[in-house]
This record gives sequence, structure tokens and C-alpha cells, in this order.
Amino acid sequence: MTKRPLILVTNDDGITAPGIRALIDVMKELGEVVVVAPDSPQSGMGHAITIDSMLHLERVYIDDGEQEEYSCSGTPADCVKLAVKEILDRRPDLCVSGINHGSNSSINVIYSGTMSAALEAGIEGIPAIGFSLLDYNYNANFETAKKYVKTIAKNALENGIPDQVVLNVNFPNLPEKDIKGIKVCRQAKANWEEEFDKRQSPQGKDYYWLTGKFVNLDPGEDTDEWALENGYISVVPVQFDLTAHHTISTLNTWKFND
Amino acid sequence: MTKRPLILVTNDDGITAPGIRALIDVMKELGEVVVVAPDSPQSGMGHAITIDSMLHLERVYIDDGEQEEYSCSGTPADCVKLAVKEILDRRPDLCVSGINHGSNSSINVIYSGTMSAALEAGIEGIPAIGFSLLDYNYNANFETAKKYVKTIAKNALENGIPDQVVLNVNFPNLPEKDIKGIKVCRQAKANWEEEFDKRQSPQGKDYYWLTGKFVNLDPGEDTDEWALENGYISVVPVQFDLTAHHTISTLNTWKFND
Repeated sequence: MTKRPLILVTNDDGITAPGIRALIDVMKELGEVVVVAPDSPQSGMGHAITIDSMLHLERVYIDDGEQEEYSCSGTPADCVKLAVKEILDRRPDLCVSGINHGSNSSINVIYSGTMSAALEAGIEGIPAIGFSLLDYNYNANFETAKKYVKTIAKNALENGIPDQVVLNVNFPNLPEKDIKGIKVCRQAKANWEEEFDKRQSPQGKDYYWLTGKFVNLDPGEDTDEWALENGYISVVPVQFDLTAHHTISTLNTWKFND
Repeated sequence: MTKRPLILVTNDDGITAPGIRALIDVMKELGEVVVVAPDSPQSGMGHAITIDSMLHLERVYIDDGEQEEYSCSGTPADCVKLAVKEILDRRPDLCVSGINHGSNSSINVIYSGTMSAALEAGIEGIPAIGFSLLDYNYNANFETAKKYVKTIAKNALENGIPDQVVLNVNFPNLPEKDIKGIKVCRQAKANWEEEFDKRQSPQGKDYYWLTGKFVNLDPGEDTDEWALENGYISVVPVQFDLTAHHTISTLNTWKFND
């Protein structure tokens, strides 16, 4: 008898978020599911890991079903490390993270806890995908996304994911009839124009809230931003070799020995 | 009269760490220096940003000199954002981060608060360099590194840094006489083999400490790990377009419409 694929599920919005509940639903159709996810929201955590404090891990029972679920006091990257080393009895065939409440397209990949979990799995040699829906609401509708999550995860289980690469999948916030399909894209060149909201405490001390406006600087039609704006689901292959290989020859002209 | 270059200095070990003090010393020789750095250590913070709580920023006076210094309650990436938006009256000509107490070579770039500050500056279009010394000790000797920091920063000010790229510089923990020079490298393929140290609280509850062993999986002689092991200072150009462009054609063979 062939074993069903083992699928590790995590996220950065916390183990009770509707987005991860939707993802667990889909994964139960594809394999044996183990969930290890943060006990509280971790958005904007980037690829943080916990090295200066201890981690708690607790078996929890949230939804019905055969999945095993663990709540962890750490970051998304911590969850993946703990799952692989302390919980799972074999290597997972796939790690999925999300479905994030909010976009992780273009430069957001850098700040994303959702994607950091996927990257952590990828670094450990586990095929991995991060899923995000362009809707920040707690009660976002994940039904349309679920159908495509299944398609993409099935492809990953059947074909594998290219070595040293994880997938960053974003869903436009559209009803199913307006979704044009799935598009493999590159990461758009974009950034955040921050604005700080400066306030004063009742004691007269200044403090700041980070706010900002997302700016797409990239006119390309092969980017994730273009795809999402035009009704497509974007799939960006993301690598963790950050070397800008094309600039090595330029840097070799620098005068290091003067 | 030409203005002296404006140099933003930050780090992830905290504003009082000896490593940033060494970096400030060198930068004062090259330009006008403004320091905005975390008020406490932030190692392992990856590219975290603070979106769910407020940020404090305070003018501080630590060492003598003309530099302006600010201590910030946020992450390294927060420090760069606050500096650019709330403190500096013009765009900095260079942002330097470090000198980190400990390595940020190869895959460590992903977990590194030091490099996240440099990346944040790079995303905002500011030439940026992260510096790290392969010595975790608080009282590490930064004297040898300082000479090379100056050489590399001078090159960056004179030549600029290639667009959409920041530099990740690591120093071997060697006396000056044993340093063979500076080498432009690619990021080695490496990872951490985690081991969790599982313990029990006096109340009988399990908890975990993350520990691990760094494993270089890359036999290449053009990597940062090779350079550092062989007495060179490594300089890796790092990009924040994470797209694995070479895999897009493979992913386009996937069956998305079954």
C-alpha cells in the first residue's frame, strides 16, 4: 500500500485564522496532514527565528478531522523547524503556508512570515508553497482560492518543485467567474512609500505608527502585480540563493588593494 | 563647497554594541554620520517590521563626536524606514549595517537582522552594505575589520553599488597578517541542521531551545564560505528580486487547467 503524501501546514496569521482552516480543508483531500502554526499572529515577521528565548509547543484540537495540530509560541520559521525535528516521523512531501490574509506579492515576499515558513521548508529540501489572498479581512472568502490551491498543490506533489525554489502564490480578491486563470510570473519591482503617523502619549512622549502606500514601479506585463491586477492568480518561483550573479564582474573592477 | 557624504549607520546587535561603535568610527572618517539603531539586540529578526505596535525613537549620546544618534524600539528594518522618513533631511549616500557580532555568510543572510537593514535601504534605492565579523563575542576585536570596512565603503561611495543590489561583507576572525585580501563571491549553498534542546519547566511543561550545527553543502571555491575558510574577506552581492527566473519555463509545463 502506498502511503498518502505527508503534508505540513503552517501560516503566520495564527493557528485559528480562517485562512489556515481553509488550507487544512484542501490538504486533507490530498494527504495526511500535520499542522504546526503560531499561537498568535506573526505578520511582518520576515524570516525571524527565535534564538534568545524558549519555544512552547502544544497539541491542540480545533476542527474535526484526522489532522494532527500543534500550536507553537514561535515564528513561522520556528514552526517548520520544530515540525521537522520534533514532530514528524518522516520528511513531509509538501509544506504549505497560508492562506495569508493579505498580499505577499512583489517586494512583500521579503517581509512575509507566510513566505518565510515556505522558504524555511525549501532550505530544508522540502517542496513548499506559500498562498496568500488579496483580502486583509479576518472574514475573507477563501472558497474560490481553495479550488486553485488544490490544483497547484496537486501539481507540486506530482511534478515536484524545482530544486532550491519555493512557490509564492497570490490570489486576486475576485469572485470565481472573474478569475482568468493561473500565471507563472516574476516578482514585480515595487516598494512601500512609508508614512509614519507621529503621535504623543498622554505623558508627552513621541511615538510612531508605521503606515504606507504600496507603489508598483514595474511596467512589465510578466510580473505578479500585473497578473493580479488583470484577474490572474500569480505563481512566482522564489529562490533563497540571493546572489546577484550578474554583478560579480562589475564588483571585481573595484580597487580593494589601494 | 561639496557636502560630505551622508552616511546612515545601523545594526541588529543594538546601538551600544562594540561592533556598531567600530563602524561609526570608520564612517566618521568618510562623511557626516547619523546613527539609528535598535535599543536592544535584534539578532535573528530576519526582515521583520513592526506593524502591530508603536515605535519609540530617542536622541541618545553615547560616544563623543559630531554624529547624531537615535535609539529605536523597533527592528533593524524599522530603523532604516524611520531614519529615511523622520530623521534625515536628505537621502543618505550610503547605509552601513553592523559590524555584526557573528557570521552572516551563506544562508545566514536570510535570518540576518544586519542584512535586513541593508536590504531595506537597498529597496529604498540607497547604496547599502552589511558587515559581519565571524566572532560572536561581545568583546570581539574589530580593529582589523575596520581597515577593510573603510576600503569597501570608499569604493561604494566612489563607484556606487549596482542597482537593486546590496553587499554582504563577512570578515574571518583572523589577525591582519593572516588575511589574504577581499574576494567577491557567491552565496554558498548551506543550511543549519537544527537540534532542539527539549527541557521541562519546574511546573512540568515542555519547552525547547533552538540549537544547531551549520553545514556547508557547497564544494565550490567561488563561495563566501570557501573564501572565509581560506583567509579571505567575502563580499557577496545580494539581490531582493527573489525570482528564480530560470525555473519559469519548467513551471509553465504544469497542468493548471485540468
